[in-house]
Amino acid sequence: MATQKDVAVRAGVSVATVSMVLAGRDAGRVTPLVRAAVQRAAAELGYVPNLIARGLKTRRTHTIGLLSDAVASTPFAGQLLAGAQQEAWNRGYLLLSIDTGGDHALDAPAIQALTQRHIDALVYACMYHREVQLPPLPAGLPVVILDGRPANEDDGRAIDWVVPDEVGGARAAVEELIRAGHSRIGFCTQRDDVPATRGRLAGYIAAHRDAGLDVDESLIVAADDNTAPHGANAAAHLLRRPDRPTGLFCFSDRIAMGAYRAARALDLGVPSDLSIVGFDNQEFVADSLAPPLTTIQLPHFEMGRWSAQAVLRRLSGDDDPQPRIRVMPAPLIRRGSVQTPNVSRLRRQHA
Amino acid sequence: MATQKDVAVRAGVSVATVSMVLAGRDAGRVTPLVRAAVQRAAAELGYVPNLIARGLKTRRTHTIGLLSDAVASTPFAGQLLAGAQQEAWNRGYLLLSIDTGGDHALDAPAIQALTQRHIDALVYACMYHREVQLPPLPAGLPVVILDGRPANEDDGRAIDWVVPDEVGGARAAVEELIRAGHSRIGFCTQRDDVPATRGRLAGYIAAHRDAGLDVDESLIVAADDNTAPHGANAAAHLLRRPDRPTGLFCFSDRIAMGAYRAARALDLGVPSDLSIVGFDNQEFVADSLAPPLTTIQLPHFEMGRWSAQAVLRRLSGDDDPQPRIRVMPAPLIRRGSVQTPNVSRLRRQHA
Repeated sequence: MATQKDVAVRAGVSVATVSMVLAGRDAGRVTPLVRAAVQRAAAELGYVPNLIARGLKTRRTHTIGLLSDAVASTPFAGQLLAGAQQEAWNRGYLLLSIDTGGDHALDAPAIQALTQRHIDALVYACMYHREVQLPPLPAGLPVVILDGRPANEDDGRAIDWVVPDEVGGARAAVEELIRAGHSRIGFCTQRDDVPATRGRLAGYIAAHRDAGLDVDESLIVAADDNTAPHGANAAAHLLRRPDRPTGLFCFSDRIAMGAYRAARALDLGVPSDLSIVGFDNQEFVADSLAPPLTTIQLPHFEMGRWSAQAVLRRLSGDDDPQPRIRVMPAPLIRRGSVQTPNVSRLRRQHA
Repeated sequence: MATQKDVAVRAGVSVATVSMVLAGRDAGRVTPLVRAAVQRAAAELGYVPNLIARGLKTRRTHTIGLLSDAVASTPFAGQLLAGAQQEAWNRGYLLLSIDTGGDHALDAPAIQALTQRHIDALVYACMYHREVQLPPLPAGLPVVILDGRPANEDDGRAIDWVVPDEVGGARAAVEELIRAGHSRIGFCTQRDDVPATRGRLAGYIAAHRDAGLDVDESLIVAADDNTAPHGANAAAHLLRRPDRPTGLFCFSDRIAMGAYRAARALDLGVPSDLSIVGFDNQEFVADSLAPPLTTIQLPHFEMGRWSAQAVLRRLSGDDDPQPRIRVMPAPLIRRGSVQTPNVSRLRRQHA
């Protein structure tokens, strides 16, 4: 079986370089050409990460179970799974996956099927940030919740978990509008009482408070659901007011898509008359709008990667009884939907 | 270990009903309530499909390897994987997955990692319909290509494969426009020379031919890439002509999104002045446009399901040396972007 040294000789680089590249720790350290050379040499020699080779001698299968609740119903799933999978693979692990389609009656048989195949650890992945009632789990199996938090933290087992920073993301969105000069900022949210709804409202309020702005509760409206048509209705409600907001923070890119439509119907330009910030950075939506939407990136890939790191940390002997918790930053992605408010046009409209 | 009979007793239904529900063959045969009762009883009893129980006595691991090339970069991946996964799970199999991110140098080590874990079969999943150069594969391992076809069919092994019916889908799109009364139908395609480009062009031409319409090649324009902004440019090119088309078939929903924008910029209503049909039925795009987009459904879920069925058929002893090939129908999804052409307005414009 080929070693890292064999790969290094074939690629004409040092063993340290091979190690970095194959562990995915080469960002900013080696050129793309060197990276490609190492990967090609590894492939040609049929190099398999050492952990797998070692696993053959241990009781480990180097397999992590991934139980997800709705891969099929959300385009985000790919990034969550890709992050977990890529990190696992870099460390010599593979994912054995089941998706229950959100039918929690299948959780228990799914976990049984996974444990029968001797998984070393379990990632329980939620397709949106929610509170999780975990099914009974085998003793000693490291478990991490990905994009969710345990509903009940009291079962004596340290369950690590990772969620997006809903509050920080919303705060960054509203601060972007405040920085551009807006002081009347609407919030188009949605009705479901989930952590994202509560966290994004808290961020909206916190950004106002920190800037010394009062929150005008009449500028907060909830769309009937998280879709563009209902987003358009909610936004129209705010934009028809004579004292309409000049900036709008939307719960999601889909609601923002509706807000663009409402603005257009009222002959308001984006961003000339109305600046908009979304949330999700949803592929093929945020960057396809005209103008492209400034939004908040949900850190799905990073959360997925963290989840694999978390169970691998437990597998490497970390038996801290405290759960490890990560609230992953949700960064602002600047595009073209925010500018300084057009005060002269507003004055004309009020006159 | 619980049996199907135990589940039947607990759920108060027949063993035949339990068998149907747990095999996913109950559609249209049992009520949702009965289905839920069976699933709940199975979960409460910790029922595990027989195949797994039997697998403990055989050399099978009841695990299918799934090697994919770019889960992270497309929102379609979820449906492909969900279809494969759900069918496998209904038959007592789980998926062990690796995504190479499209780096084919990783194919060989990925397959080695999968075979070391004793997969029974392999699904090679492409994230868009393409021709696949398969890496070397262990002898005797059943393999299916999902959303792709082998570039070289000559290696002596029967590789089953499933792809979407690009020609039939495009034909259905253009026929929908012809049925509504359109005879000048543009085609906004894109430049990449992939099977989708060739197949959709063939379908566009076939629909014209079958309806006795000439193809006006000047109505076929290629966007620089498969995005809304370039789709808008390509569509504007057609819509600025005095003899502009009244119907437009777009290579993708993203290009259709650009076509909506181009129509709006030229003050053309959709569908009053321009009917549009897309392709993909892309979640959060097709149904979020105003009006909602009539489009063609890429059958990702069904292809995923077929891929699992194909390897399971091989595992159950089908050693037909001919590859089994499935060109999966891509059905029309009618929404609100097609209507009869507005001849009077066209005449006014031409006058």
